[in-house]
Amino acid sequence: MKAVRLSKYNTTPELVEVPDPEATSPLDVVVRIGGAGVCRTDLHIIEGQWQEKSGVELPYTLGHENAGWVHQVGSAVTGVAVGDPVILHPLATCGLCRACRDGDDVHCVQSTFPGIDTDGGYAELLKTNVRAVVKLDASLQPAGVAALADAGLTAYHAVRKAAKLLRPGEKVVVIGAGGLGHIGVQVLRALSSAEIIVVDRSPDALALAEELGAEHIVRADGTQVHAVLDLTGGHGAEAVIDFVGEGGAVQDGVSMLRRAGNYYVVGYGGTLQVPTIDMVTAEINFVGNLVGSYNDLAELMVLAAQGKVALHTTTYPLGEFAEALEDLDQGNVRGRAILVP
Amino acid sequence: MKAVRLSKYNTTPELVEVPDPEATSPLDVVVRIGGAGVCRTDLHIIEGQWQEKSGVELPYTLGHENAGWVHQVGSAVTGVAVGDPVILHPLATCGLCRACRDGDDVHCVQSTFPGIDTDGGYAELLKTNVRAVVKLDASLQPAGVAALADAGLTAYHAVRKAAKLLRPGEKVVVIGAGGLGHIGVQVLRALSSAEIIVVDRSPDALALAEELGAEHIVRADGTQVHAVLDLTGGHGAEAVIDFVGEGGAVQDGVSMLRRAGNYYVVGYGGTLQVPTIDMVTAEINFVGNLVGSYNDLAELMVLAAQGKVALHTTTYPLGEFAEALEDLDQGNVRGRAILVP
Amino acid sequence: MKAVRLSKYNTTPELVEVPDPEATSPLDVVVRIGGAGVCRTDLHIIEGQWQEKSGVELPYTLGHENAGWVHQVGSAVTGVAVGDPVILHPLATCGLCRACRDGDDVHCVQSTFPGIDTDGGYAELLKTNVRAVVKLDASLQPAGVAALADAGLTAYHAVRKAAKLLRPGEKVVVIGAGGLGHIGVQVLRALSSAEIIVVDRSPDALALAEELGAEHIVRADGTQVHAVLDLTGGHGAEAVIDFVGEGGAVQDGVSMLRRAGNYYVVGYGGTLQVPTIDMVTAEINFVGNLVGSYNDLAELMVLAAQGKVALHTTTYPLGEFAEALEDLDQGNVRGRAILVP
Amino acid sequence: MKAVRLSKYNTTPELVEVPDPEATSPLDVVVRIGGAGVCRTDLHIIEGQWQEKSGVELPYTLGHENAGWVHQVGSAVTGVAVGDPVILHPLATCGLCRACRDGDDVHCVQSTFPGIDTDGGYAELLKTNVRAVVKLDASLQPAGVAALADAGLTAYHAVRKAAKLLRPGEKVVVIGAGGLGHIGVQVLRALSSAEIIVVDRSPDALALAEELGAEHIVRADGTQVHAVLDLTGGHGAEAVIDFVGEGGAVQDGVSMLRRAGNYYVVGYGGTLQVPTIDMVTAEINFVGNLVGSYNDLAELMVLAAQGKVALHTTTYPLGEFAEALEDLDQGNVRGRAILVP
Repeated sequence: MKAVRLSKYNTTPELVEVPDPEATSPLDVVVRIGGAGVCRTDLHIIEGQWQEKSGVELPYTLGHENAGWVHQVGSAVTGVAVGDPVILHPLATCGLCRACRDGDDVHCVQSTFPGIDTDGGYAELLKTNVRAVVKLDASLQPAGVAALADAGLTAYHAVRKAAKLLRPGEKVVVIGAGGLGHIGVQVLRALSSAEIIVVDRSPDALALAEELGAEHIVRADGTQVHAVLDLTGGHGAEAVIDFVGEGGAVQDGVSMLRRAGNYYVVGYGGTLQVPTIDMVTAEINFVGNLVGSYNDLAELMVLAAQGKVALHTTTYPLGEFAEALEDLDQGNVRGRAILVP
Repeated sequence: MKAVRLSKYNTTPELVEVPDPEATSPLDVVVRIGGAGVCRTDLHIIEGQWQEKSGVELPYTLGHENAGWVHQVGSAVTGVAVGDPVILHPLATCGLCRACRDGDDVHCVQSTFPGIDTDGGYAELLKTNVRAVVKLDASLQPAGVAALADAGLTAYHAVRKAAKLLRPGEKVVVIGAGGLGHIGVQVLRALSSAEIIVVDRSPDALALAEELGAEHIVRADGTQVHAVLDLTGGHGAEAVIDFVGEGGAVQDGVSMLRRAGNYYVVGYGGTLQVPTIDMVTAEINFVGNLVGSYNDLAELMVLAAQGKVALHTTTYPLGEFAEALEDLDQGNVRGRAILVP
Repeated sequence: MKAVRLSKYNTTPELVEVPDPEATSPLDVVVRIGGAGVCRTDLHIIEGQWQEKSGVELPYTLGHENAGWVHQVGSAVTGVAVGDPVILHPLATCGLCRACRDGDDVHCVQSTFPGIDTDGGYAELLKTNVRAVVKLDASLQPAGVAALADAGLTAYHAVRKAAKLLRPGEKVVVIGAGGLGHIGVQVLRALSSAEIIVVDRSPDALALAEELGAEHIVRADGTQVHAVLDLTGGHGAEAVIDFVGEGGAVQDGVSMLRRAGNYYVVGYGGTLQVPTIDMVTAEINFVGNLVGSYNDLAELMVLAAQGKVALHTTTYPLGEFAEALEDLDQGNVRGRAILVP
Repeated sequence: MKAVRLSKYNTTPELVEVPDPEATSPLDVVVRIGGAGVCRTDLHIIEGQWQEKSGVELPYTLGHENAGWVHQVGSAVTGVAVGDPVILHPLATCGLCRACRDGDDVHCVQSTFPGIDTDGGYAELLKTNVRAVVKLDASLQPAGVAALADAGLTAYHAVRKAAKLLRPGEKVVVIGAGGLGHIGVQVLRALSSAEIIVVDRSPDALALAEELGAEHIVRADGTQVHAVLDLTGGHGAEAVIDFVGEGGAVQDGVSMLRRAGNYYVVGYGGTLQVPTIDMVTAEINFVGNLVGSYNDLAELMVLAAQGKVALHTTTYPLGEFAEALEDLDQGNVRGRAILVP
C-alpha cells in the first residue's frame, strides 16, 4: 500500500510503497483509511520535537486522527465487521489495567498511539486494535469526522467535565476559538445552559463562535480581562476553559476566574504559575485535560450525527500531503486539512 | 470585660478593659469565651502582614479560633440557648447569598471574620451571629476543641475532598505533619482506607503521624521524592495533600503525584509552577482549599466527640497572652496554645 | 386587603376583606401579588384532602404559586428592596438547620408553606420571609412566571438530577407531558443532549412535546411499553421521569427502564411495587423528587429569562377565582390559570 | 479432573471424572481451584429455581465463588502468569461493550457466569477469561477468600455506594448481619465514620456485629422500627442497607429511613411496595445493588490483605461436597463452607 513516511527529522516525509499491515493478534483491526487529519503536532514531529517523548523508530507513517472502514479483523474481535465505517480512538489500549477497567482508558498503562509511536493513518491502511474502534452512524462520512478523533475528542473531554458542574446563570469563558475551541463551543452549547464568553485575538474566530452559540465574544486585545470581569459583575466566571495554555493566556484566564471556580487547562506550551495563597484564599482549582476516553468519542459521534458538532474541512488527496502540511504551516487551511487516500 | 487588643502594628497587644459586646441585631449571638487558639496568623497580624488584606481598624481584639458558651442571643436566634457550649465557625455569614444557600458558606459574599476584620476571642466575650455557632457534645470542653475551629477545620475540609475519591489500595501523601497535618492524618484515618504516607522534616512529627495511623513515614531530607516513588511502585500517589505549600514542598509534591492524581493545596507561601504540558499529559489537578463550611465543622466535632480526632493543647490564662505569643514564636508550645479567660 | 379564603371544607372559598399582613419579624417580607397560580392541589385542599396533612386552621387564604413585587421588608432583610419584582419559593425556611445549610432547604426542619399551612397568595398581599424571595430579571412579569414557583420548580428539580447523569446517545422517557411534564421537556432540552421520548395519552400534549424538542412521541394507548422498547433497541431507556405516578404509569415506566437505569418519581397517587429481585438483578434505582431548592428556582428563572422555558397561561382577575377553579376542575383552562389581583 | 456436576434437578450432584478444561480462546484463563464457596444459591440451583433464568444445559459443574492459582493462559493474556494466586470475579465479561468500557462490567451485554450458566468451580480446574482474574496479595490464601468473590463482593459494592455519601454524625442501618451483612459491617467500618446500627433476629449475629465495630445493635423482635427511631432522634437514618429484602424487612426498613435518605436493596425475595406520595414528600431513594465490578473485587482484596475484612470459613474436601450442601441446608455451617479439591 501507499504510505506517507518520515525517514529523517527535519526533512519532508515521502509517499512510498510499504507492505499492507495485517491483523496478527486476536484483537487487531486493520482499517482502510477514509480520512486522516493533518495536525500541528505532525509539523512538530517532523521537526523532531517528539523524538525523545515518543521514542519512535524511523522510518514510520504519520497520522493520528483517523477514520475509515474496517478492512480485516483478528480472531477474537467482536462488535465490528469488515466494511463497517469507523472512527479510531487515538490509543490502542490494553483493556485489562485498572485504568482501562475504570473507563479511564487514556491512562492505560500499556497503550500504543498510532501516528505517534507506531505507524499511523497517512496511508491506505492502518492497524490498531478493537478497543480503538467506534462504529459510525450511517449519516457520517469518515473523512468528515476524522479530525474529531483527537482534537475534537480533547475538546469534548474538557467541556464535559465543565458542563457537569455548570448551572443555568453561571458563566464559562472559552479562551481560544480555533481548532479545538470552536468544537468546545459547540459541545458546551449542546451540553449546558451556561452563558458562554469566548475570548480570541481573531475577529473571524469570534464571529464563528458567535454563530455557534456563544452569548458574548471578547477580543483579546489587552482589555480582555477587564471585559470578562465586566460581563461577570466583577466576580469572574465559574469556569474557564483554556484552549491556548501559553503566552499570556494562562495569567489572563486566572484573573477571569471566580472564587471557587474551575480552570480547565487544555492548550499547552506555557507555564501555570500561581501563588499558593491565591489558590487557597479564592479556593480555585486547576484541572488538567488529556484526550477523552473511548466512550467520550462515542458520545461525540452522537453529537456529530445529531448535527450538533460540525467541523469545517479541506480535503487533499494522500499524494498531496506535502501541500497540506505546507498550507497548515502557512495558516492557509480553512478548517482542518484531511488527507484522503 | 477584659480583652487583648492590638493598638499599633509591630507592638505587643495589651490587655485592656472594654465594654461588653451586645446582641444588637436579631441574629447576633454573644459567646462567653472558654478558649481561644493562639495561631501563627496572630503573629503575622501583629507584624502588619494582614493590614491591607483585612482592612481592620486599630485598636481591635485578636483571636479567630474560639469556643465557649452562649451568653446572649438576638431576637431571631433559634437552635441555641444561653448556656449552651459551642464552638464558633470562623466566619459570620449572611445565609442569603447563593454560596450560603448552596452550603458553600465560606464563599459568602458578605461575611465578617472575628479576630481578623472585627473583634475576636482573646477576650471574655465575643459577638458573632447564629450562623457561626455549632453546639458541642456534652463530652467536649470548649478549651479543648477551640483550635479545631480554624486550623482543624481547614484540614478536615481538604481531607474530606480527598477521601471522597480515594479507594482501598490507593495512596495519599500528606506533606507536613504539624498543626494542620497531624489533624489531617487523623481525619484521613477516620474517613478512608487509603494508605497514608507522611512526609516531614521532623522525626517527632513523623513519630506522631505513625502513632496516629500513617502506614508509611518519609523523612524530608532530600530523598523524599525518591522514597515516595519507591512506596508507590514508581507511579506516584493518587492524592497529595500539601499542608506546607512553600519552600520546595510544592515541586516535590507534584513529583510524587500519579497520572490523573489530585494535588490538594492547603499550606501557602510559595508558588505553584507547573508547565501546562505536564498538567495535560499527566492529566493532573490542583485543588485549592480554604477553611471548611459550617457543616464541615459540625462533622469535625462529631469526630472529636468520638475520640477520632484529638489535639494536644497547652492552656494559658488570658493575662499571659504575651507569653503564649512568645512561646509560639520561639517554637516552645507543645501542641496548640489556648488562652483561657 | 382582599383575599380568597376557605372557611369550610367542601364549600367555595370567598373573597373577603382582611387586614394587610405586616413584616413583624426581622426577616419577613411582604409581597404585593402580581400573579398566583391556580393548581389542582387547591381543588384537593377545598375538598379537605390536605386537612390532616397540613393541619391548617380555617379560615385561611389559598395560593401557593406566587410572584409579585416586594411591598415591605423586616429589619434584617438584605438583598431585596421594596419594589423589586420577585417570585416566591413555596417554602419559608429557617436557614439554620443542617438541611438549609447544605442547600437542601426543602428539607428544612421548621419551614412554613404559605397557601398550604398558612395564608397564601390568592390575595393582594402575602407574607413570607427573605429566604423565599428570588429577584426576577427585568424581562419577566410576575404573572407570567408565578406558576413556575411550584409546578415548574418540581419539574426542574427532577430533570436536573436526571440531566446530570445523562450523556449524548442515552435516552430519557418522560411520562406525562401535561403541566409539569411540558416544563420538564423544556428543561431537559436546555440541560442535556439525551434523546427525549415523551409518552402521553393526549395527542395535543404529544404535539406540544414535539414542538418543544422531544425527538420521539409515544401515544399511551396500551402499546407504549412496546413502543419505547422499540425505540431503545429493546434495552429500555437510561432514565424515566414519571410525572404521572399513578394508574398504570409506574408499572409501565419500570418496564421501559434499562439495566442500571434511574426512575424519577415526580407524580404521585399510585404505588411503586417492584420485586426486590428485579431491583437487584437489573440494578435499577428509584429516585423520589420533591419541589426544588431556592437555588433551583433561581436557575429556573434564568432559563425563563433566556426564553428556554415558557408557560402558557390564562389570567383571571382575583374576583373571578371561582371561575378559575371551576375551569380547572372541568379541564377548560388552556395552560395554567393565574389569578391577578 | 474431578468435578461435582448436576445431572438432574432435585437430585444430589455427583463427583465425576471429566476432561480438563483448556484455554482455547486467546483471553482464556484456566485456574486450578484452591477453594470454592458453597452458597445458598447452589441449593436453589439444585432445586431447579434457576433453570429458566440461567438456561444452563445439564449436566454441568456447580460453584460460582472461586479462587485458586493460574494453571494455563490463552495467547493474548497479559498481567497474570501461571502459578499466580488469584480470586475470580463471578462474571467473564467482554471488555468491549459500553458498560465494560465504563467500569460497569457487571452490566456487560455478553458475559458468562461460571457455576451458573457454564461450568463452575466445584472442580479441580475452571475456565474463565482474563477479565475475571484478580491477583492475590501473598498474604492471602485462595481458600480463605473464595467466598468473598460473590457474597463479599455484593456487600462491598452496596456499602461503597452508601459510604460515599455518609458523613460523620450520620447513621446507617444494616438490616441482617449474616453472611453478607457481617462483611458489610466490616466494609462500612473501613470506609466511613457513620454510626452503624445493626438489626437482626439472631443474638449471635448481633454480638458478632458489635465485635466488628457496630455502634448499636437492635434485636428484630417486633420493636426494631421503634428502636431505630429512638436511636436517630425520631428522624430515621440517612441510609438503610437491606441485606434481607424479604419478609417484613423492606417495610421496616422504609420506616427507619430519614427524609432524603437512601435505601440500598441487596437481599431479595420480597417486594418493595411504597406509595409514590411517600417517595415524593420524603424525597427518598431506592438503590438496587448487584454484585460489584472487577475493580470493586480488587479493592475488597486490599481490605482483606489489610485485615480489615475477614470471613469465618469451614473447609470440606471436594469429595465431601454433599455433606457441605447438607450442612448449609441444615444451618450447621459456621461461617461459609468452602470446598477444597
